[in-house]
Amino acid sequence: MKIAIKIGRYAFPSRLDFEMVSAYAEVFKKLRSEGHRLVVVTGGGEDARKYIDAARRLGGSEVACDLIGIQVSRLNARLLISRLGGDAYPEPPTGVEELRRAFETGKIVVLGGLQPGQSTNAVAAISAESINADLLINATDVDGVYTADPKKDPKAKKLDEIGADELLKKVLGEELWAGGYELFDPVAIKIVKRSRIPTRIVDGRNVGNIERVVRGENLGTLILV
Amino acid sequence: MKIAIKIGRYAFPSRLDFEMVSAYAEVFKKLRSEGHRLVVVTGGGEDARKYIDAARRLGGSEVACDLIGIQVSRLNARLLISRLGGDAYPEPPTGVEELRRAFETGKIVVLGGLQPGQSTNAVAAISAESINADLLINATDVDGVYTADPKKDPKAKKLDEIGADELLKKVLGEELWAGGYELFDPVAIKIVKRSRIPTRIVDGRNVGNIERVVRGENLGTLILV
Amino acid sequence: MKIAIKIGRYAFPSRLDFEMVSAYAEVFKKLRSEGHRLVVVTGGGEDARKYIDAARRLGGSEVACDLIGIQVSRLNARLLISRLGGDAYPEPPTGVEELRRAFETGKIVVLGGLQPGQSTNAVAAISAESINADLLINATDVDGVYTADPKKDPKAKKLDEIGADELLKKVLGEELWAGGYELFDPVAIKIVKRSRIPTRIVDGRNVGNIERVVRGENLGTLILV
Amino acid sequence: MKIAIKIGRYAFPSRLDFEMVSAYAEVFKKLRSEGHRLVVVTGGGEDARKYIDAARRLGGSEVACDLIGIQVSRLNARLLISRLGGDAYPEPPTGVEELRRAFETGKIVVLGGLQPGQSTNAVAAISAESINADLLINATDVDGVYTADPKKDPKAKKLDEIGADELLKKVLGEELWAGGYELFDPVAIKIVKRSRIPTRIVDGRNVGNIERVVRGENLGTLILV
Amino acid sequence: MKIAIKIGRYAFPSRLDFEMVSAYAEVFKKLRSEGHRLVVVTGGGEDARKYIDAARRLGGSEVACDLIGIQVSRLNARLLISRLGGDAYPEPPTGVEELRRAFETGKIVVLGGLQPGQSTNAVAAISAESINADLLINATDVDGVYTADPKKDPKAKKLDEIGADELLKKVLGEELWAGGYELFDPVAIKIVKRSRIPTRIVDGRNVGNIERVVRGENLGTLILV
Amino acid sequence: MKIAIKIGRYAFPSRLDFEMVSAYAEVFKKLRSEGHRLVVVTGGGEDARKYIDAARRLGGSEVACDLIGIQVSRLNARLLISRLGGDAYPEPPTGVEELRRAFETGKIVVLGGLQPGQSTNAVAAISAESINADLLINATDVDGVYTADPKKDPKAKKLDEIGADELLKKVLGEELWAGGYELFDPVAIKIVKRSRIPTRIVDGRNVGNIERVVRGENLGTLILV
Repeated sequence: MKIAIKIGRYAFPSRLDFEMVSAYAEVFKKLRSEGHRLVVVTGGGEDARKYIDAARRLGGSEVACDLIGIQVSRLNARLLISRLGGDAYPEPPTGVEELRRAFETGKIVVLGGLQPGQSTNAVAAISAESINADLLINATDVDGVYTADPKKDPKAKKLDEIGADELLKKVLGEELWAGGYELFDPVAIKIVKRSRIPTRIVDGRNVGNIERVVRGENLGTLILV
Repeated sequence: MKIAIKIGRYAFPSRLDFEMVSAYAEVFKKLRSEGHRLVVVTGGGEDARKYIDAARRLGGSEVACDLIGIQVSRLNARLLISRLGGDAYPEPPTGVEELRRAFETGKIVVLGGLQPGQSTNAVAAISAESINADLLINATDVDGVYTADPKKDPKAKKLDEIGADELLKKVLGEELWAGGYELFDPVAIKIVKRSRIPTRIVDGRNVGNIERVVRGENLGTLILV
Repeated sequence: MKIAIKIGRYAFPSRLDFEMVSAYAEVFKKLRSEGHRLVVVTGGGEDARKYIDAARRLGGSEVACDLIGIQVSRLNARLLISRLGGDAYPEPPTGVEELRRAFETGKIVVLGGLQPGQSTNAVAAISAESINADLLINATDVDGVYTADPKKDPKAKKLDEIGADELLKKVLGEELWAGGYELFDPVAIKIVKRSRIPTRIVDGRNVGNIERVVRGENLGTLILV
Repeated sequence: MKIAIKIGRYAFPSRLDFEMVSAYAEVFKKLRSEGHRLVVVTGGGEDARKYIDAARRLGGSEVACDLIGIQVSRLNARLLISRLGGDAYPEPPTGVEELRRAFETGKIVVLGGLQPGQSTNAVAAISAESINADLLINATDVDGVYTADPKKDPKAKKLDEIGADELLKKVLGEELWAGGYELFDPVAIKIVKRSRIPTRIVDGRNVGNIERVVRGENLGTLILV
Repeated sequence: MKIAIKIGRYAFPSRLDFEMVSAYAEVFKKLRSEGHRLVVVTGGGEDARKYIDAARRLGGSEVACDLIGIQVSRLNARLLISRLGGDAYPEPPTGVEELRRAFETGKIVVLGGLQPGQSTNAVAAISAESINADLLINATDVDGVYTADPKKDPKAKKLDEIGADELLKKVLGEELWAGGYELFDPVAIKIVKRSRIPTRIVDGRNVGNIERVVRGENLGTLILV
Repeated sequence: MKIAIKIGRYAFPSRLDFEMVSAYAEVFKKLRSEGHRLVVVTGGGEDARKYIDAARRLGGSEVACDLIGIQVSRLNARLLISRLGGDAYPEPPTGVEELRRAFETGKIVVLGGLQPGQSTNAVAAISAESINADLLINATDVDGVYTADPKKDPKAKKLDEIGADELLKKVLGEELWAGGYELFDPVAIKIVKRSRIPTRIVDGRNVGNIERVVRGENLGTLILV
């Protein structure tokens, strides 16, 4: 199975979490040894935030800030590659063409951001498209999509599945796209919809969830495309 | 003044419209001779559509289709560069870093698309950010933003200005981002908002409108950022 | 067997011919599945002509026009790659070094033009050299080399084979290299001669001819090197 | 005057020191406005150390660790570029050839590391060579070269100047090149010697020292080449 | 005036001729100081021949041999750049797009070969096209085009001018393009003809000839385009 | 076994030594056929010296001279690649990232220098690190490390092994790093030490020594890391 996986910022706190990166690497190696082919997209984590804040205070443009965020996400990609060793393509690709070439080698391809104005969630969706993925896993820091914000509404219920259009409405309706979307990015939703890529939002803070999803367990929330 | 301009698909019909490309080139040369510094983003036009349809029918992925659309938009950039001659940077940049380097030369920089999953409207907004533009002109094929669809509602009125959030709601609300956005792209709106780039949507089919907007005329619709 | 194949402009009319591209793709996949290793060079087709004419009328230099023609030939390469899917190297190489690296992957490599001042026939010959091809097939829109122009001389006879020097004399003698050479390019002839690459000119409008030539049939005209 | 300047790790603590980066930027802008032409090399700082440690613990090779350190030093370069704005070349060069091209634009060129196995001190020396610098300033966290380690020997005296060979002997003799060289790198010494680049080691924690050295003050220690 | 100049192999004998390279550099600097803009193409010289022979004997393909010849011609470009110092663009471009960008800097651009299957004479013609040159000087080791081979026929007379078609016929007729063309390459002739670039073949072994031609003297043979 | 091998200048005399290059190629092919994976670094040889001297006399900077030396070392790499044919990666990598990607293909990777200010011995050590080599062979023109200079001291004895620190002291102590280090470069020693790469200095003028070392023979001098 061809799988694209997005690992969120929780895996890259400023103190750098070796155990989680190691645990992820073990899962990815195991999946590869079973014949699965993987592309992994790493977010920027806390240090991206720190560097971007510094650049903005120093007068950097938003484009300059985005470029800095991209560089930090690639640092995180390099950390994961370090642990994957010979199972990984040795460098994080910096464009879609390079990603497609790297994927030809049969190694696990790990990359960070690609371009200003684009979230790493969108990169994950484009990466999934680029390899004609059978599955996109957005391993984020919630355990799925809820009917309402569970922090505010005790009756909020997790959804087992949600239509892409409905998710888009949900994501856009409340916040008008003003903050960051931890859940999923509108551009990413549009992409998984247009290419009908089965996508699942799961809680990535529990590394075992990745493998369970690949084994077919009905975890988190499935986006119907 | 640093200005980013998006030229829409109307300028690049399949029969290739020499007069319009020439007219645009004359305006851009004149503005440059007056000290304005320009980045121009060209859309894909009819041939992009034709090639993308062909690629899709042949089984190409959406990423492959996007890459093809990007190539065609760069062909259009090359046509405009041909007419601009020594006033233009000789090659269309293929990334934001290259755009920033090219802009240093003081020439008019013309580019097409940059990356799969990204409209040329978004490229125009990112280009505007990259050069810290004082103005972004989206020269499209309508004369501004209306209260309703003027084709359906005879009482629809053109707005002189609209808030970025309101425009975003409008763009998203009706169509849920399912088709192409001729008017403006949600990603682009987000970018002009975050960098507070004054942006004007005007009818680009009348080439004179570009110059009139630069001169300060209150044409089309201004997006309040 | 290592084979380089040039597909001519007939395969890429302005309306874009899906059937022919599909048929070619099927032949190439089949040959690959039998162990043959292929490089395919696509010409620019009618749209290259259209864009070049536009650029020239807009004042573009001949180099600018050539660069545009190269871009269109790469669009055609991307169409063929779309249909070849996982059998093809995902991007058209843009230089000989990249071609050599791409060929290492074992995939079918599809490319368009490489450099201004160089026909895609010459690119096909250089590509053949680059991979130490056992065979170069120039799939053009005539069924071989004739003793005279068959349109003018009813007694003109197709030649089963012709020496490289004789072909060169023929190609150059009549036209002094003033127009385009559909038949074969002098630079290409020089290259196949210097590297002694068996080369066959066949009618590519009949897709089946490619396979027949590979099977050893004595089709079209063989250039003796 | 053409000047290459190395800014050490003190300027890039993990909490990111805005004041110091801003102060440096002001000095560099002022020097440029007076006609000086600058290349600035930024070290990796504390975060380079943090990321390298993480990569090493994760099993990354020393080359992988070096590549990570280089990326972090480029992040620092981007911070400084953010503050320099239009006075800076917009991207940190990634090789000597690119550095030489960037320097042609007349902007301040800021870069981090270049290649595994090479300290940013060596990069500073090579950058100085690349631009035929009239002066190389190594702005480090000591105020010059001492006769002995001032922390251990109260009689240690700062030297106003030292021969390159003597400095090399000193640097190598005590530590056999086992740790990092804050003072100066043997490769760097070799380079400034072979190209006879006047080099001064000064305390960069006092930003004003840069300007004073350029004005001709006899600060820190001069390396005789 | 925009001028492209080809320097032939006589300037780069295996012992490396400092005086001639220096003399050429002086002429180029002087022309630049007067406002002329130059592109200079260097041939491979004797060492290209030596390396190519070695590669061929070792079993290298003709493409590999061409790539080696290109590298040596770039070494020669670097020698000339070394002498030109700040008047030259610091690196030899490796493609037409890069050449066009380099020429924007106003420096003298020096390059060697570009691509396998292409002589440096053809590169000179393409370079001339790329910059819309007013003049192409082929500084070769004969003093012009003769009615016959002067070594064999004592009555051979040098021509003051010759039509492009006639020159092409002459070049091709005798040798059928079997050896190298010191005089001029058929591809190059085709290019100067299509772009109507005034071209003069002069004896480059006398460095002063370059300046005399630029001053308008009727030296060598003019190709009528 | 993963092996990095440095071939010294003796293999590339100005007359170009076909027999030695061929003999090396045969050994490398044989080792590859047995499953060993190789990276080979070629020095610049006599022609590097010749070109560098010319560039220096013409006024080229030391950086320009180094770049020229790197280009010549890559010519030598291309000669070896020519002889290796399909066993070799077709192009010499120009950076560590590219080297790591090239090594993924399973071919023998041959490269020359990488960067100014860096010897090809250092490149060999970095290459060894990049592939996590099990062995680095420095095939030089002496048969190992001696207790003293054997040309001056008849009692000098070859050492079977030497500690990295001791070798470093030896190399630096006598010459203060003023000339070239045929034996081994201090940067290289530092690298093999930090990555604990077993390294052997052997006499490469006897090609058979390479194979004997790989077979486990105790030849030359082993550096203890």
